[in-house]
Amino acid sequence: RYTDQITDNISDKEAAKLLKKQAQRNHGRPLKRDSQVQIKEEHYSKCQGRDNSCYITLLKLGEDWIFLVLLGLVMALVSWGVDYASAKTVQAYKWTYRALHPNVPLQYVVWVAFPLGLILFAASFCHFVSPQAVGSGIPELKTIMRGVVLKEYLTLKAFVAKVVALTAGLGSGMPVGKEGPFVHIASICAVVLSKFMSIFCGVYEQPYYYTDVLTVGCAVGVGCCFGTPLGGVLFSIEVTSTYFAVRNYWRGFFAATFSAFVFRVLAVWNKDAVTITALFRTNFRMDFPFDLQELPAFAIIGICSGFLGAFFVYLNRQVVLGIRRHKALSQFLTKYRLIYPAVITFCIASVTFPHGFGQFMAGEVRLETISTLFDNYTWIKHSGDTQILGKSAAWIHPKVSVFVIILLFFLVKFCMAVIATTMPIPCGGFMPVFVLGAAFGRLIGEIMASLFPNGILFDDILYQILPGGYAVIGAAALTGAVSHTVSTAVICFELTGQISHILPMMVAVILANMVAQSLQPSLYDSIIQVKKLPYLPDLGWNHISKYNIFVEDIMVQDVKFVSSNCKYRDLQAVLQSTTVKSLPLVDSPESMILLGSVERSELQALLQTHLSPERRRLLNREMQQKLNEAPYDGPWANLPKLKHESFAYVDEDEDTEEKGEVRERSGQTAAYRMLGSRQAFEESDSSPFLCQIDAWEQEELNKNVCFDSCRVDPSPFQLVERTSLHKTHTLFSLLGLSHAYVTSMGKLRGVLALEELQKAIEGSTRSGVRLRPPLASFRDINRTSTNTKVGSKSKKSLPLTQSPKENSLLALIPSIDLAPIPL
Amino acid sequence: RYTDQITDNISDKEAAKLLKKQAQRNHGRPLKRDSQVQIKEEHYSKCQGRDNSCYITLLKLGEDWIFLVLLGLVMALVSWGVDYASAKTVQAYKWTYRALHPNVPLQYVVWVAFPLGLILFAASFCHFVSPQAVGSGIPELKTIMRGVVLKEYLTLKAFVAKVVALTAGLGSGMPVGKEGPFVHIASICAVVLSKFMSIFCGVYEQPYYYTDVLTVGCAVGVGCCFGTPLGGVLFSIEVTSTYFAVRNYWRGFFAATFSAFVFRVLAVWNKDAVTITALFRTNFRMDFPFDLQELPAFAIIGICSGFLGAFFVYLNRQVVLGIRRHKALSQFLTKYRLIYPAVITFCIASVTFPHGFGQFMAGEVRLETISTLFDNYTWIKHSGDTQILGKSAAWIHPKVSVFVIILLFFLVKFCMAVIATTMPIPCGGFMPVFVLGAAFGRLIGEIMASLFPNGILFDDILYQILPGGYAVIGAAALTGAVSHTVSTAVICFELTGQISHILPMMVAVILANMVAQSLQPSLYDSIIQVKKLPYLPDLGWNHISKYNIFVEDIMVQDVKFVSSNCKYRDLQAVLQSTTVKSLPLVDSPESMILLGSVERSELQALLQTHLSPERRRLLNREMQQKLNEAPYDGPWANLPKLKHESFAYVDEDEDTEEKGEVRERSGQTAAYRMLGSRQAFEESDSSPFLCQIDAWEQEELNKNVCFDSCRVDPSPFQLVERTSLHKTHTLFSLLGLSHAYVTSMGKLRGVLALEELQKAIEGSTRSGVRLRPPLASFRDINRTSTNTKVGSKSKKSLPLTQSPKENSLLALIPSIDLAPIPL
Repeated sequence: RYTDQITDNISDKEAAKLLKKQAQRNHGRPLKRDSQVQIKEEHYSKCQGRDNSCYITLLKLGEDWIFLVLLGLVMALVSWGVDYASAKTVQAYKWTYRALHPNVPLQYVVWVAFPLGLILFAASFCHFVSPQAVGSGIPELKTIMRGVVLKEYLTLKAFVAKVVALTAGLGSGMPVGKEGPFVHIASICAVVLSKFMSIFCGVYEQPYYYTDVLTVGCAVGVGCCFGTPLGGVLFSIEVTSTYFAVRNYWRGFFAATFSAFVFRVLAVWNKDAVTITALFRTNFRMDFPFDLQELPAFAIIGICSGFLGAFFVYLNRQVVLGIRRHKALSQFLTKYRLIYPAVITFCIASVTFPHGFGQFMAGEVRLETISTLFDNYTWIKHSGDTQILGKSAAWIHPKVSVFVIILLFFLVKFCMAVIATTMPIPCGGFMPVFVLGAAFGRLIGEIMASLFPNGILFDDILYQILPGGYAVIGAAALTGAVSHTVSTAVICFELTGQISHILPMMVAVILANMVAQSLQPSLYDSIIQVKKLPYLPDLGWNHISKYNIFVEDIMVQDVKFVSSNCKYRDLQAVLQSTTVKSLPLVDSPESMILLGSVERSELQALLQTHLSPERRRLLNREMQQKLNEAPYDGPWANLPKLKHESFAYVDEDEDTEEKGEVRERSGQTAAYRMLGSRQAFEESDSSPFLCQIDAWEQEELNKNVCFDSCRVDPSPFQLVERTSLHKTHTLFSLLGLSHAYVTSMGKLRGVLALEELQKAIEGSTRSGVRLRPPLASFRDINRTSTNTKVGSKSKKSLPLTQSPKENSLLALIPSIDLAPIPL
Repeated sequence: RYTDQITDNISDKEAAKLLKKQAQRNHGRPLKRDSQVQIKEEHYSKCQGRDNSCYITLLKLGEDWIFLVLLGLVMALVSWGVDYASAKTVQAYKWTYRALHPNVPLQYVVWVAFPLGLILFAASFCHFVSPQAVGSGIPELKTIMRGVVLKEYLTLKAFVAKVVALTAGLGSGMPVGKEGPFVHIASICAVVLSKFMSIFCGVYEQPYYYTDVLTVGCAVGVGCCFGTPLGGVLFSIEVTSTYFAVRNYWRGFFAATFSAFVFRVLAVWNKDAVTITALFRTNFRMDFPFDLQELPAFAIIGICSGFLGAFFVYLNRQVVLGIRRHKALSQFLTKYRLIYPAVITFCIASVTFPHGFGQFMAGEVRLETISTLFDNYTWIKHSGDTQILGKSAAWIHPKVSVFVIILLFFLVKFCMAVIATTMPIPCGGFMPVFVLGAAFGRLIGEIMASLFPNGILFDDILYQILPGGYAVIGAAALTGAVSHTVSTAVICFELTGQISHILPMMVAVILANMVAQSLQPSLYDSIIQVKKLPYLPDLGWNHISKYNIFVEDIMVQDVKFVSSNCKYRDLQAVLQSTTVKSLPLVDSPESMILLGSVERSELQALLQTHLSPERRRLLNREMQQKLNEAPYDGPWANLPKLKHESFAYVDEDEDTEEKGEVRERSGQTAAYRMLGSRQAFEESDSSPFLCQIDAWEQEELNKNVCFDSCRVDPSPFQLVERTSLHKTHTLFSLLGLSHAYVTSMGKLRGVLALEELQKAIEGSTRSGVRLRPPLASFRDINRTSTNTKVGSKSKKSLPLTQSPKENSLLALIPSIDLAPIPL
């Protein structure tokens, strides 16, 4: 019976509350609790009568799986469209280049001008349509998933700008990736689609659902980018979330699989592929893909990739910070926005020109690099006979050794990738790093093949070494190191369609992660730092300190608050003294019992209404009216009038009319008088009149604030003083809190904002007792210096005068407007 | 400066608090806040002096990665050991069977007696060593990860019982799996290891870390079971968690990869495998694994697997419930525990006897079924020529069609698997279902191959159909349907070493999940229901109702509480009226301001101490002493004595000695008098004396309770009335709460226990507005009937008189002691 009762209640309330919400929307401002109850009861009977059938039909249209299928479909089409358009552009590029064959100078002009034009178009398109479309998108999404609102980041405008500019960027053949921007594009798509779906179903409007929608969007973004649903879901989890709701795993899989499926089917339909296969399919032998004795080589790839990945992140950050530090250069580049991408594109295109330096770094296959690197043949064996190698023959130079070619390619490409990802166009770092890793792996593989030209002996059988396998492992390890993820291994399996190297690849990826994580933050965290986005750092492996620090140790005790019995003067003072977005409302300054939280805008509205000229005039008029009435009716006039009113209560209509007339009349006279007096004032001087206003305001400020018309959030998030840092971090991460009040027995004791928590976690990381991976010490020294800088900077602004959300926007806007190269 | 300050504080506090914890442990009962501060300050200087060096060395030994490596190593050894031992047992079994070749009756005896003996050994070993070792282990772990404490579930005893009995069970060749038990074994291993590690490092003792340890344990358990690290981590996430901390993903990967690596290296070392490859490696062609036109067949496999999976779960539950319902049978089986497994084993072994019915279901390859089902050849093509098929030739019967054989195999095996997994031995359902799915997929594949004997025409090329690929997809889909996971696809890739079928497999697994999830709960949830474990159901896809129900709608408003100014009599009344494990402490019954939560045991101790005979005697003695002193010194005696004391404050030692003497003397006299008076009482009658005690107790009960010596938790988890059901569910799931207090402005308004939340969620699932997958209606009808039953049952016990935790134990113990077949 208990259960049944609850169920009945719930279904009724459900419908009633949906209607209530509509009512709320109509009213503009949400209703207060009392009136809500009233409305609920009003609609109660209506709902019962309606039988809910048409309502359910509407809701069915908004079902979740329809949303997921639509999202998958749209993103697959977008992904395929971007690929198709950029591929066609590249074809046209190549065709023009080849058509001018004997004329090398003209070829050079085309080789350079073509990407230059595209990149400049992309940069200016982004700049004019939506500057938010610039960069990877993963760092910003990580911040958004954390609960921070970034303005205009998930709009249709940004979607268009990102898609168009990305297509141009990819078509230019620059070393920029598609993965990061696609995460952004898919997230916008998910948000826009969920808004559209909310016409049918209210659930998409809930704040929690927002995160769910974004999670699925990220998964679809990675999944449809390369047709890797599994790796996509895992990569997006690792990169964007701290806590992950397992139900989103399922939803992500569903949408990403559908998306990847459609993406690959479109390729088949377009005759790009014979059937649904992997994007960079490999054909390694499966009986004996590798020997245990090759493991040290795989481990070396992993460890070196870790160092290289950390170095990549470091360099990438230093390029941006270096330009930002150089004031004059920074200002110059901000003024002439297109110079920076133009110079970079020019350099990169020049270096890769096949008749110039490009011949030493396989410039000819610049756009099919990955498939040649994953090639099944051992290049050093076939360096004489290039027929069998096919396209990979571009790597064989008649005069220079293969090793030198690969090494040169790796080094030049490394610098190119570092610089290219700082251009103000939509660009991801994943693919360039993937190519770098493949080249590095291939280098090690070829070296191994030359060390053991006859293969490795095991159980009396000789097994050849497969340099292509090394390339795959290198690609997974380096991308893993740069992004601090292990799911790059899964992406690699899906991209190559072969899983035979699973164990050595996992070992290499984990080793690369261990090294890279102890040296540098991930590429995305590094961009977050550079852009100064408000992100809560993750807790380390097992910091003992997190369990022994409590909220009371880090909270801000000097809280600005509003008490329910305060005067308007106090309210004004509080509003002037702080800029936080919401203020706690307490019972009285003595008891300090927390009643709720009020938004700043509400309080400002309250104060403004109270001191507004309209109200002043109204009050003035009423006062005048009273004064008017007093001499007119005599001092005893009030008594019979009151009586009259109490009589009139029986038939109201008549009375109000009468009263209205009376008011009107008296109002008119008051107005005349007012006008007269004002004219008189204005004739003499305006200052006494202003004085009077001021006096009136001063008087009004001394009155008690009436919070009746003010919307109070009765359930701000509360912690107690003895909540541990670990628990606090968990709650902040999971619920996306920006601040929480610390209470003790209902009394407000302090406040804890994201900023304090961030500092406490960063601080404790540097404490004496540390449990970090073995190589952490180098990183910590590095971090200390940046930390103190950030600390001293933020110290200037008062610790609590800015809410983290505002802070984020402030931090973001300069990075877009002032920083020359918004990553 | 702000950051630095925090850091200093933190490192000092860290060390100080560790020492404080030691002190706490010594005192037995944790100290109160005031004394904690004192101790902290005392140790402060000591810590500074010690330089922390030896301390850090100790902590280094307890580092996380050492724990992970050790866990991986141990579990790989255990997994390999179990495999090795069971393989040897199976070898001995086969050898004996073949040695008796011509003698069919003797062969039959061996064929039946061998598994019979092993299963009976396993059952009795479990029964005597640790009954908790019975069953899969995943449902219980799901419950434990939810925050519920199951007694003696993670002990070394259970570890030994599970490993030994599992080896015997696997060696018997019964259709029981290794995966579920391995999750349990690995979790025990992780917990025991973490306890061992906590010698070096205190972090392992934290409540949060417990969940982290278990998560990694589960991942390693699945990972080392088949050498599938990726799938292992994902499967364990999907099966055990609701919210997943991404940091554990990394840790799980590390440990599972290491474990799988060692597991496979051991196989190479033992010459079972040439190199590290997949367990059930397939050799499908990779150029064109399947055609798009085959997709409908894959979709059919997916949908049928969904229905079959749901049917499997339904049957499995009905077997247990059916026996439990039959009182007489249930009692009989409980009395003679070994009869049930013996009958089942006998039946299964008899049916599979190769010379009997077994010839129609490939009885000969009973133990290599999977590798034959994943075979590369098309059986119907080679039914005449069995030479080429190798071991798979067992599937070709000279008289009966291959289709009939596979169908028979599937049907009989289905029933066998359903029944075998209810035996009281450690047994998982994953592997049997995997085999079933493979058989089903093979059946569809062979049918397709016979429908298109020449293959499928595409682009003027004929492509043969690969029935083995269908088998792999079927296996993934059916296991996915039974366990409600999608990561079975990943496990399949890793097991077969081929990823070429990724997209059709994902499609099939998702379709199977959609169907199965709408019909039945997962196998693990079903076992949780049957065993009545306290588990919070997951929120559905997007129940709109979750956002529109608030805590105030479901909370229990009639809370039993203790007020800080209450009398011992009230305390006694509260303790007698309720059995909850902890009670809220409020300021006063009028204000109801929540001060904290007190454990029941603390309150009982308080009451007992207050009414204890020792205290009574002490008070009596003191009273007597006062009475003694009064006539001795006269009525003015107190005044000079007080003066003396205030003087004595200067040199205390002297005074205490003196006072001690005085006390001793007066104590002696009091004792004499007491003795005298008691003797007098006892001489006359004992009832007046008892009366006196009673009177004294009644008097004492009227005194105010002194909570000074009582340990109060100052931060019980609090919600406000307007917290939504969705948020509440999130918080309960994430933090593993068993109950939370509902407060409004610091005032206690109600309490919400796991039970209420569970009912609210189940209730709302059945509400009018529902957003479930398309086929959900069938399931909901089914659920309603079970729900009402459970509801009426639990209504008998008062909703709040039992805390969920106690409830869980009560629910578990009968299922182990009374239920004949503890799943």
